[in-house]
Formats: sequence, structure tokens, C-alpha cells
Amino acid sequence: MSNLIKEKINQAIQILQEEDIDCWLTLVRESGIVHDPMLDFLIEADVTWLSAFIITRTGESIALVGQMDRATIEELGVYSSVLSYVQGIKKLLLSTLQRLNPRQIAVNFSEESEICDGLTHGLYLKLVDYLKEINLEKKIISAQKVISRLRARKTPTEMDRIKRAIVQTEEIFSLVTDFIKPGRTEREIADFMIAEVHRRGLGFAWERSHCPAVFTGPETAEAHYRPTDRRVEPGHILNMDFGVEVDGYVSDLQRTFYIRRPGEEAAPPEVSRGFQAIVTAIELARRKLKPGIQGVEVDRVAREYLVSQGYEEFPHALGHQVGRFAHDGTALLGPAWEKYAGKPFEVIEPQMVFTLEPRLKIEKRGIVTIEEMVVVTPDGAEFLSTPQKELILI
Amino acid sequence: MSNLIKEKINQAIQILQEEDIDCWLTLVRESGIVHDPMLDFLIEADVTWLSAFIITRTGESIALVGQMDRATIEELGVYSSVLSYVQGIKKLLLSTLQRLNPRQIAVNFSEESEICDGLTHGLYLKLVDYLKEINLEKKIISAQKVISRLRARKTPTEMDRIKRAIVQTEEIFSLVTDFIKPGRTEREIADFMIAEVHRRGLGFAWERSHCPAVFTGPETAEAHYRPTDRRVEPGHILNMDFGVEVDGYVSDLQRTFYIRRPGEEAAPPEVSRGFQAIVTAIELARRKLKPGIQGVEVDRVAREYLVSQGYEEFPHALGHQVGRFAHDGTALLGPAWEKYAGKPFEVIEPQMVFTLEPRLKIEKRGIVTIEEMVVVTPDGAEFLSTPQKELILI
Repeated sequence: MSNLIKEKINQAIQILQEEDIDCWLTLVRESGIVHDPMLDFLIEADVTWLSAFIITRTGESIALVGQMDRATIEELGVYSSVLSYVQGIKKLLLSTLQRLNPRQIAVNFSEESEICDGLTHGLYLKLVDYLKEINLEKKIISAQKVISRLRARKTPTEMDRIKRAIVQTEEIFSLVTDFIKPGRTEREIADFMIAEVHRRGLGFAWERSHCPAVFTGPETAEAHYRPTDRRVEPGHILNMDFGVEVDGYVSDLQRTFYIRRPGEEAAPPEVSRGFQAIVTAIELARRKLKPGIQGVEVDRVAREYLVSQGYEEFPHALGHQVGRFAHDGTALLGPAWEKYAGKPFEVIEPQMVFTLEPRLKIEKRGIVTIEEMVVVTPDGAEFLSTPQKELILI
Repeated sequence: MSNLIKEKINQAIQILQEEDIDCWLTLVRESGIVHDPMLDFLIEADVTWLSAFIITRTGESIALVGQMDRATIEELGVYSSVLSYVQGIKKLLLSTLQRLNPRQIAVNFSEESEICDGLTHGLYLKLVDYLKEINLEKKIISAQKVISRLRARKTPTEMDRIKRAIVQTEEIFSLVTDFIKPGRTEREIADFMIAEVHRRGLGFAWERSHCPAVFTGPETAEAHYRPTDRRVEPGHILNMDFGVEVDGYVSDLQRTFYIRRPGEEAAPPEVSRGFQAIVTAIELARRKLKPGIQGVEVDRVAREYLVSQGYEEFPHALGHQVGRFAHDGTALLGPAWEKYAGKPFEVIEPQMVFTLEPRLKIEKRGIVTIEEMVVVTPDGAEFLSTPQKELILI
């Protein structure tokens, strides 16, 4: 695991050079209580006392930690310098920053990107107080650019973990297909999959209460809701949102099933038509996705296509990045809505991993939604998942 | 579980009245990525989109959430009002706050208390931007007093869970006593306990990599370090730091063992003397602990006693609060060190749960440390754990 941390710290140095930023500072304390998501790229454990991890444009990596956290950090073998204290960090932090005398100190806050916003407001105030003593408080800038690139630019180790998470997810989708039958509840289907996750020693990609999320029929909560005692019924659509975690990296996929009525060979025309529209929307989006464009353009292709086919606009973004979290990164394939702020306007870069997940409703049947995962290549985007091209018929 | 949330929201209203604060606002987004620790007192799940939970002095409880999170929040049955949005929260948030027109808006930040510091700096900036539009930005104050009291004042439901976690921990300490033998490694001892935690369906009180922490002999990392392949040896002291989680609440206890040499009936005098000094320090501290005093006074009693007996000062606080986290709450039984800021000077109140955990080193033997848990009563403090009064001899 510390190989990955070494890879990411080297990437961070590279990104600081690209962005011409002298110094990136991650400041945390009791990280088991409030956990800056960047910490997982910097160390393998939580820290108890106020701790600073400093990466510089010139290639230094410095950890300032409480004495009782020192052994754990040193043994990573990654930091060029590990310094520790008993009573308080201030002296160490100020002397280190005075020596570096950086033009900028990038810290982890952002109004628009939650993944770049791990610094708490109280710690920010404390940092400003400290820096005032050495007249560096004006050097503070947002680390959003550093963090966004660092999370987006997947290393080979990261890609390997994501691919393994996808394979596991697809295998569990296959297994559960035989388990889905009229009369079974959403809860029973979810429990079957959860048992399989445990059996395989995997983690869950998001909160366990709705991983997997299972929705059957037309009356569901639609998304972000736990499986219920609602039963699978013939004539209904069932869809699932599911992902697993492998070595800290996750997958996030959705699949759609149709439960045939007695005598039915295929799904009714309105269900097949809706499914086909989703498949087409995903393919149009994937072909649009490439380095240099903005996510809003990719979202628009899928959104406008579905509206042109007479469906309601889906009430969320077309796709998000995936990494350590199911919702990772800053750049988003989304519409220009208030809640997405500048994310849909970030420029797409190679090595970003995205989901593509349009949805639509079919009256009296349920929700059709497929979620695939793709990686941005130097000139396009490739599927990482095996795309669902046919309704799974039960 | 939503009973507990109801209890805590009612307590929050009570505390707002005591502190004469009009409104407490918890603002979060993607709480699976950065998780404000107060969220667990307000809802049972994570939220995806920017969400606001507002409690007022007059007894209102208002949740403003993204549409796809709405069903989960409504079903709690706790909020007097649940409002949802698709594109952005701003309109809902501003109209709600305009209606309330509060004299203060307490939000979750604190320089000195990490548990009161769940609001990220980027979200703080966003909130200020929003509030400027309705001229309420000057009403923002720290919610530290509200949060500190809310976390400290344990309800009967919370006490029940903590007690159950303690009982489980003590049972596992008993079981592992028979497993500890010369030649076993720290890792094997920890694995035995971890298997027992899983068998009982419990959670871990802190990071799994060092829960339990097991230290044997004089050459250990002393604390906050994972179990190693170091073997138990006769003539050494072994100590463990361990806690479990039951329904979201944890225990945190330490026990000390002595590994007898062939022919040894009891521990050598210097080990017995050190152990007795720790027992006495804990009892002196427990007798000192009561409502109205400051934690620094309790820490001092134990610290000065051990120094008077010729031992080195322990390099940490005497005790911390316990609740949802092993390190919970603001008030601390600690010395006046920079890193503890104002925490040792907070006034002790009834219903606070603390650890008492002095330690000392015995040359060539290891670390003697006991950690007990106590609850502050109206006129003193009572043990919640069954205090260790004798070295456990192996």
C-alpha cells in the first residue's frame, strides 16, 4: 500500500510543478473523527494529534506528527522527513514553513468541490493564527487544482484496483440474476448480494444501508433508499445500484432487469424502447467524452437525446468520477445546475474514470437505468465495465 | 435508532434555551466523503447533496435535503419539517432562515475542539456567501457550546450502549487471558481478540489496525501502533488498549499483564510497585472528579502523584470523554499543553463519561497502564468498568 502512497506523492510533486505552486499542506487532527479525504493518499492510518503533511514543488515530503503517531508514519518509508512533538505542533510547523518560505501554501478547501474540502473551518482559523506569526498567512490558496488532478489522474495501481472492483461487481450481478424471482423482496435480493460481498472479503462502495440499492416496480423511492419489503412482481422493472471496494478503490454500476409475465417471451415494447434509449444515450455520451472538452457537453448529449425521445430529463448528473469513493473527483459530467457549481465546466483529462448513468421512468413498470464505468484515453473514452446491451429477463 | 435521534434533538433544543442561542445549523454535503461527526445525532444515514439541519430554541427541527435523500429523512419521523430540492439548496435555505430571523446561527466550527469542528472551510465560505444575500452573515457563531454539551450529556439510551460495550470488552479481556503465553506474538493475541469481536457481531472502537493495540516488553512503540511479531517473554509486562462498538457507542479500556518467569510466584517488586502506583493514581483522580471543577485539576492529581513516586510524567492527557468515538467531547482531563488548547479548562458536568489512563515505564520490563471508564454523577464519579486492582499474572 505504501507503494501507492509513493506513486501519489510523486504525482503531487509533478502537479505542483505543472501548476507552479510551491507547497501543498494537508492539516488534520483526530482523523478518525473528521477525516480529510486526502489523508488516504498521504498515510495509511489515522492520526490522533494535529498533524501536517507538506509536499513541495522541489520534491520534499515532510510529516509533522504527534510523538505517538511517529512510528506508524516513519515505517511507511515515504517521507523525506518525519518530525514529531509532544506538547504542540506550532514550533515545528512554523520553523518548517519559514525554512521553505513558499510563494503559495495550498490547503484543502473548496466551495464547489467537496472532495477538495477536507480542511475544517476551525483548523483553517488555527492555521491562519499560526501563519500570522511568521507573516505567511497571505500565502494560503485553495489546493483544489492540486487535489482534483491528483484524484483524477489514476496510476496503474489505482486502475488495477478499480478494474478488480468492477469484475467482482459484475460477477455478483451475474450470481444474483438467478436469485431474482417474483415474490422475493428487495431486501432478500440485497441480502443475497451482501452475503456474497462478505464471502469474497470485499468492502462496500458506499453506505451499507443501500449498497446494493434495489428498486422494483413503479412505486419506488427511485434512488438513495434502502431495499424494502416490496416484492418482485411480473410485469415490473427491477433495477440495482451496486459497487464494491477492493484495496480502497470502488466500482459503481447499475443494471436493469425485466420480470416477465407468464407467457411473455420478451419485455413489452415500451420497456424495450426505454431500455434501448438508455443504451443509446450511454453510447452517444461515451463517444462525446474525450480530453479537452467540458463535462457539461457530455451530459447534454445524453440529456437532450432522451428528451428528444419523449422522456423526462433525469434529475441528476449523467456521470461522476470514481476512485476511492463512488463519487470522487471534481470534474463532473453534469448540467449547469446550482448544486454542481463549476464542476461541469472542468476540463476532461486522460486517466479520469467516470460513470455514465442516465435514467428514465416507464409508467406502471419502473425505472430503467444503466450505469457503466469508462476511462478517458488520450483521444476518447473506453468502457471499463462490460456494458449492458440487453435487458436481463427474469 | 430514531428514538435516540429524537432524544438528542430534544436535548439540543433544551441546550439552545440554556445558552440562549436561537438557531443551530449543521451544513453538510456528500457526508460519505467528509463526515461532520454531529450528523450521527441528526440522521441515521449519509446525505449526498448539500443539506441543512436546523434546530431552533423555540423547538423547530427542519431538514433541507436533496430530493433523492428525502425519503430516508422523512421516514425518521423526527423533523417537524422536511423540504427538498433538485437543482440547488439556496432558495430553501435563505427563505427558511429569513423566516426564523435568528439572533445567532450557531455552526459547527471550533479551533480547539475537533469534535465541534465538522464544518469544512469551503462550506463555511459558501454559507457566508449565501447569508450575505439576506444580511445574516454576521449572525454566525461557533456551535462549540451546543455540541460540547450535547455530546457530553449522555442520555439513558447512550449510557446503556456504552455499558454494553464495556461488558463485551471486559469479557474479551477475560477470554484472551488464557490465550496469552510466552512465545505468542502480539499479532496472534490481537487476532484472537479480533476473531472474538467478529464472532460477537461487534464493531471496533477505533481503527482496526491497532484495535486492540498489544504491547509486550520494554522495546515497544508504546501506543498507537499496530501489533507486531514481537513475542511474549517471561519477565516482561504486556499491556493492551482495546474497545468495541455497540450500536454506535464505544468502550476504551487498557489492562496490564505480567508474564512470570519459571518459579516466579508474583511479579518482581518494581513491577508491583509501578502497578500499585497506577491503581492509586486512578483512584486519586476518580475521587477528585466531580461537577464544577476543571479537567486540568483531575489530571494534575494523577500526574503529580506519579512524579512524586519517582516516575516520568506520562506524555498524554489523563483521560478523555467517550461516546460515539473513543476520543469524544471537548472537556478533557489533561495538562495545560498547547495541543489541548482550552479543553482542560472546560467545566466538568454530570453525565460526562471519561477514561482515566495514566501510564509509566518500568526499565527492562515494559509499560504499566490501566484505563478505566467513569461517569460523572451529581456529586462525584463512579466506575463504569470493573477496575483492575491486581496485575493479571500469566
